[in-house]
Amino acid sequence: MELLAAAIAIGLAALGASIGNAWVIQRTSEGIARQPEARGALQTTMFIGVGLIEALPILVVVFAFIILFTR
Amino acid sequence: MELLAAAIAIGLAALGASIGNAWVIQRTSEGIARQPEARGALQTTMFIGVGLIEALPILVVVFAFIILFTR
Amino acid sequence: MELLAAAIAIGLAALGASIGNAWVIQRTSEGIARQPEARGALQTTMFIGVGLIEALPILVVVFAFIILFTR
Amino acid sequence: MELLAAAIAIGLAALGASIGNAWVIQRTSEGIARQPEARGALQTTMFIGVGLIEALPILVVVFAFIILFTR
Amino acid sequence: MELLAAAIAIGLAALGASIGNAWVIQRTSEGIARQPEARGALQTTMFIGVGLIEALPILVVVFAFIILFTR
Amino acid sequence: MELLAAAIAIGLAALGASIGNAWVIQRTSEGIARQPEARGALQTTMFIGVGLIEALPILVVVFAFIILFTR
Amino acid sequence: MELLAAAIAIGLAALGASIGNAWVIQRTSEGIARQPEARGALQTTMFIGVGLIEALPILVVVFAFIILFTR
Amino acid sequence: MELLAAAIAIGLAALGASIGNAWVIQRTSEGIARQPEARGALQTTMFIGVGLIEALPILVVVFAFIILFTR
Amino acid sequence: MELLAAAIAIGLAALGASIGNAWVIQRTSEGIARQPEARGALQTTMFIGVGLIEALPILVVVFAFIILFTR
Amino acid sequence: MELLAAAIAIGLAALGASIGNAWVIQRTSEGIARQPEARGALQTTMFIGVGLIEALPILVVVFAFIILFTR
Amino acid sequence: MELLAAAIAIGLAALGASIGNAWVIQRTSEGIARQPEARGALQTTMFIGVGLIEALPILVVVFAFIILFTR
Amino acid sequence: MELLAAAIAIGLAALGASIGNAWVIQRTSEGIARQPEARGALQTTMFIGVGLIEALPILVVVFAFIILFTR
Amino acid sequence: MELLAAAIAIGLAALGASIGNAWVIQRTSEGIARQPEARGALQTTMFIGVGLIEALPILVVVFAFIILFTR
Amino acid sequence: MELLAAAIAIGLAALGASIGNAWVIQRTSEGIARQPEARGALQTTMFIGVGLIEALPILVVVFAFIILFTR
Repeated sequence: MELLAAAIAIGLAALGASIGNAWVIQRTSEGIARQPEARGALQTTMFIGVGLIEALPILVVVFAFIILFTR
Repeated sequence: MELLAAAIAIGLAALGASIGNAWVIQRTSEGIARQPEARGALQTTMFIGVGLIEALPILVVVFAFIILFTR
Repeated sequence: MELLAAAIAIGLAALGASIGNAWVIQRTSEGIARQPEARGALQTTMFIGVGLIEALPILVVVFAFIILFTR
Repeated sequence: MELLAAAIAIGLAALGASIGNAWVIQRTSEGIARQPEARGALQTTMFIGVGLIEALPILVVVFAFIILFTR
Repeated sequence: MELLAAAIAIGLAALGASIGNAWVIQRTSEGIARQPEARGALQTTMFIGVGLIEALPILVVVFAFIILFTR
Repeated sequence: MELLAAAIAIGLAALGASIGNAWVIQRTSEGIARQPEARGALQTTMFIGVGLIEALPILVVVFAFIILFTR
Repeated sequence: MELLAAAIAIGLAALGASIGNAWVIQRTSEGIARQPEARGALQTTMFIGVGLIEALPILVVVFAFIILFTR
Repeated sequence: MELLAAAIAIGLAALGASIGNAWVIQRTSEGIARQPEARGALQTTMFIGVGLIEALPILVVVFAFIILFTR
Repeated sequence: MELLAAAIAIGLAALGASIGNAWVIQRTSEGIARQPEARGALQTTMFIGVGLIEALPILVVVFAFIILFTR
Repeated sequence: MELLAAAIAIGLAALGASIGNAWVIQRTSEGIARQPEARGALQTTMFIGVGLIEALPILVVVFAFIILFTR
Repeated sequence: MELLAAAIAIGLAALGASIGNAWVIQRTSEGIARQPEARGALQTTMFIGVGLIEALPILVVVFAFIILFTR
Repeated sequence: MELLAAAIAIGLAALGASIGNAWVIQRTSEGIARQPEARGALQTTMFIGVGLIEALPILVVVFAFIILFTR
Repeated sequence: MELLAAAIAIGLAALGASIGNAWVIQRTSEGIARQPEARGALQTTMFIGVGLIEALPILVVVFAFIILFTR
Repeated sequence: MELLAAAIAIGLAALGASIGNAWVIQRTSEGIARQPEARGALQTTMFIGVGLIEALPILVVVFAFIILFTR
């Protein structure tokens, strides 16, 4: 039962993080195609954004590994 | 059963926070690509916004870790 | 069973608050990119709005912590 | 079982109120960005609207706390 | 079982009323931003509309409180 | 079991009536903002429409109260 | 069990009739706002349409009341 | 069990017929608002269309009443 | 159990046929409003189309009545 | 149990075939309204298309009747 | 149980094939209405496409008939 | 139970492959209608694309037949 | 039970990979129809993209075959 | 039960990663078709983005293989 709980949590987190990252990165890609000279500013924003988005899902992964190794 | 409850809560929170952050960050990225001189104001708004969005999910993570370590 | 109830409530509240906040903040971000001189008025509206949106989810979190510590 | 009932009710109410408030506030924010001189009228409408929207969810929260403290 | 029934009814009603009210109020807000001189007529329509929308959900709340106090 | 049946019926009816009314009222509101001189005709149509929409949900509420008081 | 069956049927019918009526009435309202001289023809169509739409749901309500009074 | 079967069938049929009729009638209403001189042809098409759409749901209602009176 | 099977099949068929017919008829209605001289060709296509769409759901109704009268 | 299986299969097939046919026929109808001289070519394509779409659902109906008469 | 499995597989396959074929055929129909001289090339592409789409669902039908006749 | 597992896998694969193929083929069809001289390049891309899309679902079909013949 | 787990995993992976590949390939097809001279660059990107997308689903297929042959 | 948990997690991760990668790659493909000279910058962004998106799903795959080999 604990593994099922961990799997649901980690699965939802991976789904959310993948979709969220993809939205940010594709807007960055559109921005570079429209204004190539703003590439540096856009990529900086992209790295900060991906870091902020993955903060919570990483916590969920930690949560799942604690359940996995302490059962 | 408690772990399943915690996993559902933490999974929904991670899903919501990832999608919410991604919406804010991609609008910021579009704004910078359209008006590079407003970069400072947009990034300030982005950091405030991400902080406000993650306030509640972080509480849910705290809620889940309390369940995890006190069972 | 009580924890499962609390987890469903807190999870829905976190999901709703994250998405609601994100909608308000991204419109603010678009507004600043379109009219940089209206930044003050927009950010004031944003802070009031975020406060109003989070009023009910915070009550739900209180509800969940009461269940958590009184079982 | 009573707590599960209360949690479903309070969770749906918080989800609805957050999304409803967010829709009203973001239209207000767009309106200010488009017509800065109509800021007073728009914010008055916003406060009335948020009050009307939260009338029913607050009743649901009262409903849930009655269940919580009388079981 | 009665409380679960009441909670489902009251939750759906609160969800519907919040979303319905929000749609009416945001159209009013857009209308004021587009035509500030029609503010009186729009707000009168808004108050009538909110009253008509909340007529049925209020009955559902009454239904739920009758179940709550007569069990 | 009867109450659960009544609650599902009354909940769906309230959800449908709220959303249906909201659609009619917001189109009326848009119409007034676009053509202020057609306000009388639009509001007459709105009142007739709201009456027609609420005819069936009111029957469902009657259905639910009959179940509630005759069990 | 019979009441649950009746409630599901009556609930779906009320949901369908409310949404169907609302779509017809809001198109009528838009039509009057666009062409005020066609108000008579549009309202005649609206009354015929609402009558045709409610034909089947009324049968479902009759179905439900037969179950309710013959159990 | 037979009544539950009949209720699911009749409910889906009423939902489908209401939405289908509404789509046909609102296109007719839009057509009259756009071309008032084509009103006769459009209403003839509307009556034929409503008759064709309701052919199958009426069969389902017959199906349900046979179950209701022969159990 | 056989009746439940028949009811699910007949309900899905009625839902599909109503929506499918409605789509075809509303496009015909739009076509007549746009080109009144093509009314004959459009109505011919409409009758052929409605006949083709209802071919399969009618088979499902036959299927259901066979179950109903042979149990 | 076999009838339930057959009913699910036949119901999904009828739903898919009705919607698929309706999409093809309404595009044909739009095409005739836009270019009346291409009516022959469009109707030929429509008949071929409807035949191709109904190939698989007819197999499913055969599948269901085999189950119905061999149980 | 085997028949239920076969019915789910065959139902999903028929649903997918009907919708997939309909999308291809309606684009072909639009293309002919827009460019009547490209009719040959479009119909060739349509036949190839329908063949490729139905390759997998036909395998599923074979799979289902093997289960049906070998139980 | 093994057959149910195989049927779910093969059904999802057939649904995915049909829809995926249909998207690719309809874009090819639109491209030919817009630029008839690019027909060769588009059809080459279409065949490569269909091959790549069907790679995984074919593996799933192999997976299902292994289960079917080795039970 | 292990086969059911493997089937769910392999089914979701095939669904995801088919849809993901189809999105990439149809954009490539649109790009070639719009700019025939960029065909080489687009196809190179397409092959790299399909390879990257199928990396994870292939792992899931490996996962499923390990379960299939080691039970 | 552990395998079912692993399969749900790995399936959701593969679904999310495939869709996320596809969104990024198709925007890259559009960008190259619109601005062939920005191909290098776009492909660099694409490789970084795919790497960032697949970071979390790869962790989930590792999680699943640990469960698979340690049971």
